[in-house]
Amino acid sequence: MKCTVCRGPAVIKTRHHNGKFCRPHFFEHIERQVRRVIERYEMLEPGERVLLGVSGGKDSMAAWDLLTRLGYDVRAVHIDAEFGPVSRRAVAHLRDFAAQRALPLRIYRYPELLGADFDAARRQSRKPVCSLCGTLKRYYLNQLALRLGCDVVATGHNLDDETAFLLGNVLHWQLGFLGRQGPVLPAEEGMVRKVKPLVRLTDDDTRRYVAARGIAVVSEPCPHARGATSRAYKRHLSRLEKEYPGSRSDFYFRFIEHVRAHLPDDPASAEVGVRHCRVCGYKTLREDRCYVCALRESVAAAEAAG
Amino acid sequence: MKCTVCRGPAVIKTRHHNGKFCRPHFFEHIERQVRRVIERYEMLEPGERVLLGVSGGKDSMAAWDLLTRLGYDVRAVHIDAEFGPVSRRAVAHLRDFAAQRALPLRIYRYPELLGADFDAARRQSRKPVCSLCGTLKRYYLNQLALRLGCDVVATGHNLDDETAFLLGNVLHWQLGFLGRQGPVLPAEEGMVRKVKPLVRLTDDDTRRYVAARGIAVVSEPCPHARGATSRAYKRHLSRLEKEYPGSRSDFYFRFIEHVRAHLPDDPASAEVGVRHCRVCGYKTLREDRCYVCALRESVAAAEAAG
Repeated sequence: MKCTVCRGPAVIKTRHHNGKFCRPHFFEHIERQVRRVIERYEMLEPGERVLLGVSGGKDSMAAWDLLTRLGYDVRAVHIDAEFGPVSRRAVAHLRDFAAQRALPLRIYRYPELLGADFDAARRQSRKPVCSLCGTLKRYYLNQLALRLGCDVVATGHNLDDETAFLLGNVLHWQLGFLGRQGPVLPAEEGMVRKVKPLVRLTDDDTRRYVAARGIAVVSEPCPHARGATSRAYKRHLSRLEKEYPGSRSDFYFRFIEHVRAHLPDDPASAEVGVRHCRVCGYKTLREDRCYVCALRESVAAAEAAG
Repeated sequence: MKCTVCRGPAVIKTRHHNGKFCRPHFFEHIERQVRRVIERYEMLEPGERVLLGVSGGKDSMAAWDLLTRLGYDVRAVHIDAEFGPVSRRAVAHLRDFAAQRALPLRIYRYPELLGADFDAARRQSRKPVCSLCGTLKRYYLNQLALRLGCDVVATGHNLDDETAFLLGNVLHWQLGFLGRQGPVLPAEEGMVRKVKPLVRLTDDDTRRYVAARGIAVVSEPCPHARGATSRAYKRHLSRLEKEYPGSRSDFYFRFIEHVRAHLPDDPASAEVGVRHCRVCGYKTLREDRCYVCALRESVAAAEAAG
């Protein structure tokens, strides 16, 4: 097997772009994918302060490494849900990576953000655990970006994540989610810009990338994610990808470029319009306080009641 | 197991509507599904002449039986592609059914429609076989409806067919096909209305229905359909349906009712606009003659060249 670029011995084969690469040209290939998608969707400007949400998994570690290599001013933020040994290993990997490269890293835990730990929030919430965790992380990454003076929140979501999410939303025609899905979500009142610079890379790409770079990552899935529907959608899409290579990428980028803008508004949000939380300014469909501010109050009330 | 309607012994369990039925109430349930969808989408008016395309498979046989029971004036048309023993068995079942019930049935073969058999057409076409067969059947059912003075063409497509087609079109965002997908395609110049009265029934429903009614059908798949992509999509959707019951129906009817009308036009047809074949009047994107008229000429030229 020879490197498609230099004809030297190849060590990595990528299914998605049908390439074979020696280690240096694999790195170059991956960096080019990320650089190009950042440019194409105008995700980041030089000099902007980028808050990167990092979990310690392969995707966000790859994003941390790649955005730093590409010269962006990355401030990594980890929200530690304290889910036991997996969470402790994640924190150790993150601290090691930051220390070795002298990169900024801030770690927050729910008691300091929400006034109580994740389990307390979970008892007060009717959302499924993955949905609650996602809601809280999105909320706090946005609020921390505002607080820390960052211009944009980046996350390590890759093509597999995004297409699984898209398939789930298409199968139920979730218009609210479909309208907001994409590699870039522009800034608006109370909300910083959100970007996904790894959206051209697959699970395989980021797994191989961190392995080839020797970056330690947490590879066990989250203990709560067993049986998550997103994994079922990933499985279905992987099977389709095997039968029709390139179909995931087509599915995602055609949607973003040709379909998304035409979809009607979500009936719920079309009816109530956009509102902002009176406590924190976060965008919400709710009347008074956003979901997280209301949850924070229920958690406080429950803690006070003992 | 008791019938959900009469509490008598149930013999049939339907996954889709989560019902258990004795034989008479199963028939009533299936008939109601068909009657309701015909009304909801204004598919057929009493007194209209309905050309029903029949293949001899479970779906079109169920449609033939059901539309006749519901009192519609059904003229069954079979286009015999002469694919060997399966096609001969189909013709035998169709003739028996028509004879037993004294129903009108016309059978056409490609030599009389196209001037040559299907294989000759296949040699002149670059389309995959299933696509060519579908194109020819859609074309001739429309032309025969016009010739026979029918108001509408009905086919036996069921929910599994329609959702597999929808999934394929969504995964590739085939805007041309997505815009035309639905239980009713209105009449326009050169084209009669097309309707799918079984679109609320699943493969399981029609299989059980013809079995319970004692209707003989061809159950082997078409010899050309092996590995057809539509079957892969059906498999994926069946797995999803098992995990999330009702998801197929949601996927289809939400698309039809909330999404389809908003999609942009297919770039190809938006560019050239609607044209009509100068030979036969059929709607086409082509400059002069429609696909089938051009194919008929190539076939004639090839036959003449020997």
